[in-house]
Amino acid sequence: MKLTVIGLGLIGGSMAIDLRKSRFATEIIGVDNCPEHAAEALRLGIVDRLTDFETGVKMADMVLLALPVDQIVGLLPTVLDLIDPAATVTDVGSAKREIVAVVAGHPRRGNYVASHPMAGTENSGPSAALAQLFAGKLTILCDQEHSRPQHLALVEKMYQTLGMSTAYMSSDEQDHTTAFVSHLPHVAAFALANAVLAKEDGSIIFDLASGGFQSTVRLAKSSPEMWSPIFHMNKDYVAEAVTAYIHHLKQFRDAIREGEMERVSELIREANKIRPVLNGESTSMTKNEEIVVKLYTKK
Amino acid sequence: MKLTVIGLGLIGGSMAIDLRKSRFATEIIGVDNCPEHAAEALRLGIVDRLTDFETGVKMADMVLLALPVDQIVGLLPTVLDLIDPAATVTDVGSAKREIVAVVAGHPRRGNYVASHPMAGTENSGPSAALAQLFAGKLTILCDQEHSRPQHLALVEKMYQTLGMSTAYMSSDEQDHTTAFVSHLPHVAAFALANAVLAKEDGSIIFDLASGGFQSTVRLAKSSPEMWSPIFHMNKDYVAEAVTAYIHHLKQFRDAIREGEMERVSELIREANKIRPVLNGESTSMTKNEEIVVKLYTKK
Repeated sequence: MKLTVIGLGLIGGSMAIDLRKSRFATEIIGVDNCPEHAAEALRLGIVDRLTDFETGVKMADMVLLALPVDQIVGLLPTVLDLIDPAATVTDVGSAKREIVAVVAGHPRRGNYVASHPMAGTENSGPSAALAQLFAGKLTILCDQEHSRPQHLALVEKMYQTLGMSTAYMSSDEQDHTTAFVSHLPHVAAFALANAVLAKEDGSIIFDLASGGFQSTVRLAKSSPEMWSPIFHMNKDYVAEAVTAYIHHLKQFRDAIREGEMERVSELIREANKIRPVLNGESTSMTKNEEIVVKLYTKK
Repeated sequence: MKLTVIGLGLIGGSMAIDLRKSRFATEIIGVDNCPEHAAEALRLGIVDRLTDFETGVKMADMVLLALPVDQIVGLLPTVLDLIDPAATVTDVGSAKREIVAVVAGHPRRGNYVASHPMAGTENSGPSAALAQLFAGKLTILCDQEHSRPQHLALVEKMYQTLGMSTAYMSSDEQDHTTAFVSHLPHVAAFALANAVLAKEDGSIIFDLASGGFQSTVRLAKSSPEMWSPIFHMNKDYVAEAVTAYIHHLKQFRDAIREGEMERVSELIREANKIRPVLNGESTSMTKNEEIVVKLYTKK
């Protein structure tokens, strides 16, 4: 199967590495509007060959759009215009409502499967691509009822090949969920970096590798090219999530400032409930079990 | 040298492991008011033997208080009352002003060296103790002019043995700095966990291991027994740091909500400046260089 990957960065590159190795794709064609990235991906053996956008789309059995979300919105209608009528198209965008909206009335909407593989690192470019980046992680498939069954099946098979679980929800549910579990942690890390960097006398820069700062701020290394469009496309839900976060920060700050140690301990014990959830241990929170059942049972 | 470690948790236990291995201490006596922790530390070989508080303090050449900060404040005056007049006392508390204040007029104040080794994990108890936990990290030594030179030298030697760098500042400077680089990241993680857990429909719990959430929230596993007293003792500076953080979060949220993509990109580029600082690379921020010189040059 000929797979055309458009966008040879961390995500597209990492997917290409595993999809070639597993023989899901027998030929991987790379397209990237940055000549340096394209040449690097070829040199690293991530793609078999490079071509231009139109040629790459036309020759593919499957097209994978691994670009910042604004570029996906810009290109997806043209991709559907150009593909072979039997070809499958998917993307990896982290905010989905605008992407599905731009092809809502397209005669080939059924060829397209909206997906969001939830994995990554704070690095970017083809040299950041990693084998097994996606193994054990989750992909969200959105609005599956608008994709033809064959195209949905092929995309599901691709994510299974990468070792991922799949969850199914509407693009609205995915955008709301992702605002909390992915977009908010990025805003939290960016703002933490800025708060520390802005401290006027600068005396606190001296040791940022200690004291727990490093893990909390790791995501602040992420690029504006990727994240500014994501925040933009999901702005209502991201703003809601940041507002909720500020509310919880104020609870902490006010209890600390007023010297209410027992209240602070209570808030920390509440936060500690994240522990079994993160560790994948069983939890007494029955609502979680229901959610897992709901999400992992294909509609 | 006989070292008595009071508090056989992550920090005390990890220090004991390396101080025995290096032969800095020839005998390590353990004191812990939790019988299970004490027995576990003995079983794991972290200490040579266990004893009660008073006996342990009286027999020591050096006493290390590795307890939550409120317990350090409670015990430090009694420790100074009980020690051999030639013995050295130090502690590992993360907030220092109240600790040094409680022994300000003590006749043996010079035997005490206020220190804050900046290392740890989100786990606790003797089973969480790790060799080499402190290597390459920084210890802050506070108000060194109030410690006699011999006691300061021995504590410096202990931290050198652990592979740590040392910085010197007043306890006020240390508390202000630590509020931003350590206490604030903990509040940020706790509040992030609470914001996600509180989302009323619970539909977002399903996959917290993906999407960047895990690293940002890691510190939310930390215990209330340790952190509630730290926040309490440093409440003015922690409240200041959280307020600064909320200000930077609002900048992001408002720019996102208003659709100001270029402004959002600018804020992200600002946050990206944390990258070379975290990676220990050289940076063009000359103010950092001055700070490093200031801090690492012993006063």
